[in-house]
Amino acid sequence: MSLVRVHNFSISLDGFGTGDGQSAEAPFGHAGEVLHEWMFATRFWYEMTGKSGGSAGLDDAFARQHGPGIGAEIMGAGKFGPPGWHKDPDWKGWWGPNPPFHTPTFVLTHHPRPSIEMEGGTTYHFIDASPAKALETAREAADGQDVRLGGGPTMIREFVAAGLVDHMHVVVVPILLGRGERLWDGLEDKEKDFAVEAVSSPSGVTHLTFTRTES
Amino acid sequence: MSLVRVHNFSISLDGFGTGDGQSAEAPFGHAGEVLHEWMFATRFWYEMTGKSGGSAGLDDAFARQHGPGIGAEIMGAGKFGPPGWHKDPDWKGWWGPNPPFHTPTFVLTHHPRPSIEMEGGTTYHFIDASPAKALETAREAADGQDVRLGGGPTMIREFVAAGLVDHMHVVVVPILLGRGERLWDGLEDKEKDFAVEAVSSPSGVTHLTFTRTES
Repeated sequence: MSLVRVHNFSISLDGFGTGDGQSAEAPFGHAGEVLHEWMFATRFWYEMTGKSGGSAGLDDAFARQHGPGIGAEIMGAGKFGPPGWHKDPDWKGWWGPNPPFHTPTFVLTHHPRPSIEMEGGTTYHFIDASPAKALETAREAADGQDVRLGGGPTMIREFVAAGLVDHMHVVVVPILLGRGERLWDGLEDKEKDFAVEAVSSPSGVTHLTFTRTES
Repeated sequence: MSLVRVHNFSISLDGFGTGDGQSAEAPFGHAGEVLHEWMFATRFWYEMTGKSGGSAGLDDAFARQHGPGIGAEIMGAGKFGPPGWHKDPDWKGWWGPNPPFHTPTFVLTHHPRPSIEMEGGTTYHFIDASPAKALETAREAADGQDVRLGGGPTMIREFVAAGLVDHMHVVVVPILLGRGERLWDGLEDKEKDFAVEAVSSPSGVTHLTFTRTES
């Protein structure tokens, strides 16, 4: 059974998954990197960026669930580039020549373009589709493996609202961003489809896992 | 030093401290009692309601910080009664003849009325005042002890925004209410005035404590 999974999705105490004012210089807007500092400190991140070191505790255990078993990713347009990237025919994403996805990666956009093959197994495909239709496409590409939803908050919210998410790992960072894009808007009672666990980490963040209980 | 403290203030994952549609039958609106079930299960609550039993773990340890050292409470109008209570001259609050405050209790309202002395040490006073002015009044009544802010979310938000809170205990319940009154709105960066701790409980809730670090 191919599952739909969310990993390492970080939000502020007040629920923002990105800050206000996303731009080429500020992928997370005014939030900067503060939502992901917990992850940058893990061995998972050190290894991924070719360094040695990093923490091997709870945060690392969660962080490294990101890769195994994943056969494709779907990401929102804002995770691929700043507003207006579709006007730049040479834009190849925020993630460098060897992106950390290593699978077919479907970018949701109203401006599809030809696919781009990157190093390390990532191929970007650009699709203008509903959550259900995008998932159908990604699942086919995943070839029996799971599909990861990469964010941002808007696309995750839409997939949760559509009842398409099986497993979701959300990390609550103890900051108040005040503005940006909220993860939880319009999801009243949606937690009832899941078993929810919360576990706080010595780093200060709290890991929430949502595991679907309905079939 | 007389501190300003918040205890057992419960919010949903999406940040709502009360649900939508507060009324005489539904003090927390559509949220019902679900925000406070963690507390109803504690020995603290059992004792307060004259029963024996209840859990003696983490939730209880936090819950029973509510009383000790408190010399006065300030509460918002919505914690005293449903919308329109000021039109009923006989309304004496939602909390029965022996309310769980046991101190002078200042109700913030645009419709002040004469004070009401209840059993058990609670006297309700009704004041139309800014957070700073209300605190001045309550602090005088507290006679050197601490002042508790009783909620709801609007009044706590206002006191935090005004920099008046020294210690705040917020309990995050893993539900998505979707609508109601949010605690965190308009408090960008306010966490920076505090040391923040998060600890998740086996009951499923996460206790957040904010301890002021600036003087």
